[in-house]
Amino acid sequence: MTKTAAYAAQSKTSPLAPFSIERRAPTEHDVAIEIAYCGICHSDIHEARNEWGGSVYPLVPGHEIIGRVHAVGSSVTKYKIGDLVGVGCLVDSCRHCSSCDEGLEQYCENGWTGTYNSEDKKYGGRTYGGYSERITVDENFVVRIPDNLDTAAAAPLLCAGITLYSPLKHWKVEAGQKVGIVGLGGLGHMGVKLASAMGAHVVMITTSPSKAEDAKRLGAAEVLISKDADAMAKAANSFDLIIDTIPVGHDLNLYINLLKRDKTLVVVGAIEPLDPMHGALLIMKRRHVAGSVIGGIAETQEMLDFCGKHNITCDIELIDADYINTAYDRMIKSDVKYRFVMDIASLKNQKAA
Amino acid sequence: MTKTAAYAAQSKTSPLAPFSIERRAPTEHDVAIEIAYCGICHSDIHEARNEWGGSVYPLVPGHEIIGRVHAVGSSVTKYKIGDLVGVGCLVDSCRHCSSCDEGLEQYCENGWTGTYNSEDKKYGGRTYGGYSERITVDENFVVRIPDNLDTAAAAPLLCAGITLYSPLKHWKVEAGQKVGIVGLGGLGHMGVKLASAMGAHVVMITTSPSKAEDAKRLGAAEVLISKDADAMAKAANSFDLIIDTIPVGHDLNLYINLLKRDKTLVVVGAIEPLDPMHGALLIMKRRHVAGSVIGGIAETQEMLDFCGKHNITCDIELIDADYINTAYDRMIKSDVKYRFVMDIASLKNQKAA
Repeated sequence: MTKTAAYAAQSKTSPLAPFSIERRAPTEHDVAIEIAYCGICHSDIHEARNEWGGSVYPLVPGHEIIGRVHAVGSSVTKYKIGDLVGVGCLVDSCRHCSSCDEGLEQYCENGWTGTYNSEDKKYGGRTYGGYSERITVDENFVVRIPDNLDTAAAAPLLCAGITLYSPLKHWKVEAGQKVGIVGLGGLGHMGVKLASAMGAHVVMITTSPSKAEDAKRLGAAEVLISKDADAMAKAANSFDLIIDTIPVGHDLNLYINLLKRDKTLVVVGAIEPLDPMHGALLIMKRRHVAGSVIGGIAETQEMLDFCGKHNITCDIELIDADYINTAYDRMIKSDVKYRFVMDIASLKNQKAA
Repeated sequence: MTKTAAYAAQSKTSPLAPFSIERRAPTEHDVAIEIAYCGICHSDIHEARNEWGGSVYPLVPGHEIIGRVHAVGSSVTKYKIGDLVGVGCLVDSCRHCSSCDEGLEQYCENGWTGTYNSEDKKYGGRTYGGYSERITVDENFVVRIPDNLDTAAAAPLLCAGITLYSPLKHWKVEAGQKVGIVGLGGLGHMGVKLASAMGAHVVMITTSPSKAEDAKRLGAAEVLISKDADAMAKAANSFDLIIDTIPVGHDLNLYINLLKRDKTLVVVGAIEPLDPMHGALLIMKRRHVAGSVIGGIAETQEMLDFCGKHNITCDIELIDADYINTAYDRMIKSDVKYRFVMDIASLKNQKAA
C-alpha cells in the first residue's frame, strides 16, 4: 500500500487513483477523533470489493473505531479533548421516527447513515470510515470506551460485540439459561464471551471438533458438533436461545430443532437467502426465527460498560495498514482468531516515510 | 359409500373392508358423545390418503366434532347428559409436562394424543375421529358449545377457529392494529372473522382479486393482492401481525417485508419445507417468523365463548356422509366456501336403510 489504507478498499479490478479524504471541521455538535485502532469486519470486504453492489469509490471502510477526541464543537457536552471514544456502524439517523425515539437507531425508519459508503444526508457527499487517521462524528453517535480495556482489542466491540450483545439482551438471557452460539468466528467468539458473562450455560455449536478447545477457553460450557446427528438429536428441544452467526446462506432446520417451545433462533450473519426452512419445526413448538442487526447508541454504550465491568474484549491480531489485503484473504479462509484490528499508527508512519 | 363414512377415509388405493369401531363405555372421567356434526379439515385428506405417512387403517378422520352428551362416567363434574359439547384435535396429553402445566396441551412435551389415527396411550389401540356416530372422550378434553351458535357451522371452530384464535391472542392483537391474513380458505376466513371481532384492521392478503368481495363481507377492511408489486411495496413495514394460512410450501419473503420492526409472521398452514427466506428481511427490522398449532383446551373454550359472544361461526357447506370423496376432491381445488361439515344424521340414516 502506497499512501493510505483507503486505497485498499478500492475494487481489486478498479484502477487505483490517489485521493484525499477531507474530514469536516467539527460543527456545533461534532467530535473530531484521532483514530488509534480500527477493527476489520467481514462486511468491509464485501463493501471494498463491491460484492453487495452499491459501493461508491473512493471508499474508506472501517466501523469499529477507537481513538481520542482531539477537537469538539461549541455545543458538545458529552466529550472533551483527550477522551477515549468509539464509533460503530452508524454516524447518524433521522432522530424522530418511532425506532429512533426508542433508542433503536439501527432500525431507523428513514434509514440510518452508515459510518462509511453511505450518503451523508446532512453534509452531502459520502461517509468515510475508520481505515483513516481521523473522523468527525456527531457526539450523539459517539460512545465512551472504558479505560480498563485493552484499546486495540476493544475496537471490534463496536460491531462484533454489539451485534451479539443486543440480541442477548433483547431476548432477555438470564443466568442459567441454555444459549447456543452457532459459528466460532469474529461474531461467534464475542457471543460466547458475552453470554457466559451474563451467566448463561453457553453451548458452542460448530461443524468443527477442532474448535472445541478454544470455545471452552472463551467460556463455552459445552460444544455441540452440528454434524453429529446423535448429539443433535439428544439436544433437541433444550435451548432457550440460539444466535446464529454463520455469514452465508445455510440450513436453519438443524438449529431450529434444538429450541424449546416458544424460543428463538436469531440470525445475525446471513443477509442473503437461507436454505428452505421446514414449517413443521416452527408450528409444532411455536418456535421463532428472527434477525437482529448491531444495536442502538445507548445500548452500545451499555455493552461497552458491561465489557468494562467484566473485562471483555475481542481476541485480535493487530496488523499494520499495508497488511490489509492479506488480512482480507485470510478472513475469507476463516484464518484469524478472531478479528483483525488495524493499528492506525502504521498508517501515519507510512505517510511520514 | 356403503356403510359408514369411515370407509371413505381408507386410502383410495387400499381395499375397502368392512369394520366396526367400538367406542369404549365411559370410564370414570369420560363423556360419551352422540355426534351431530363433524367439520372436514384438509388434514383429514392427508391422513385418509396416507400422504403424510403413518396412517393406520382402519382410520376414522374428523376432529371438528360437535354433539350431545349421552352418558357420563361416575366422576364427571363438568358435563351432564344432554349438554352440547365439542371435541377438537386432541383427546389427551401427558398432563404433567411444562406445556401441559401451562394449559398448552397442544405443545405437550411428551406428545399429545390426536383425536384420530393416534396411538391411544391410556387404553391401547388407535383413536378414531368424528366421521362417526359416537365418541368417548375424557371430560378434560371436551369443551362446551355456546347455545346461540348454529351447531353445524360451529363445528369447524374446533380446529380452523382455534388455529387462528390462538396466534391472534398469543401475539396480543389489539383494537386498531393492522393484521394480515394470508389466504382465504377454511383457516383464512376464520382469521378474518376473529381478528375483525377483536377490533383489528384486517387485511386479506391473497393472490386472487376475485376473493376481494367475499373477504370484505367476512370483515376485512382491505384486500391486498400479493401479485400486485406496487401495492405490496406500498404496504411494506406496515403490519403488526400476519397469519399465513397457505397449506403448502411457498415464498414467505413477500409477507415478511410487510411487517413492521419486531413484528411476526405466523405460519399455521404449511407443515412442509418453505421457499428460501432472505436473511436481510429478518435482520434489518428484527422481524420474526414463527409457527403455531391449534390451541390448548382452556383456550379452545375461551375461543368458543368469544365466538358465542360475537356470534361467529364458519361459513360452511353441509354434506351427507356419502359425499365425502367428492368433498375431498373439491377441497383440493379450493372449491368450497369455506368448510365442509358432515351431517352425521346422514350416516345413521344410511345405516338404517
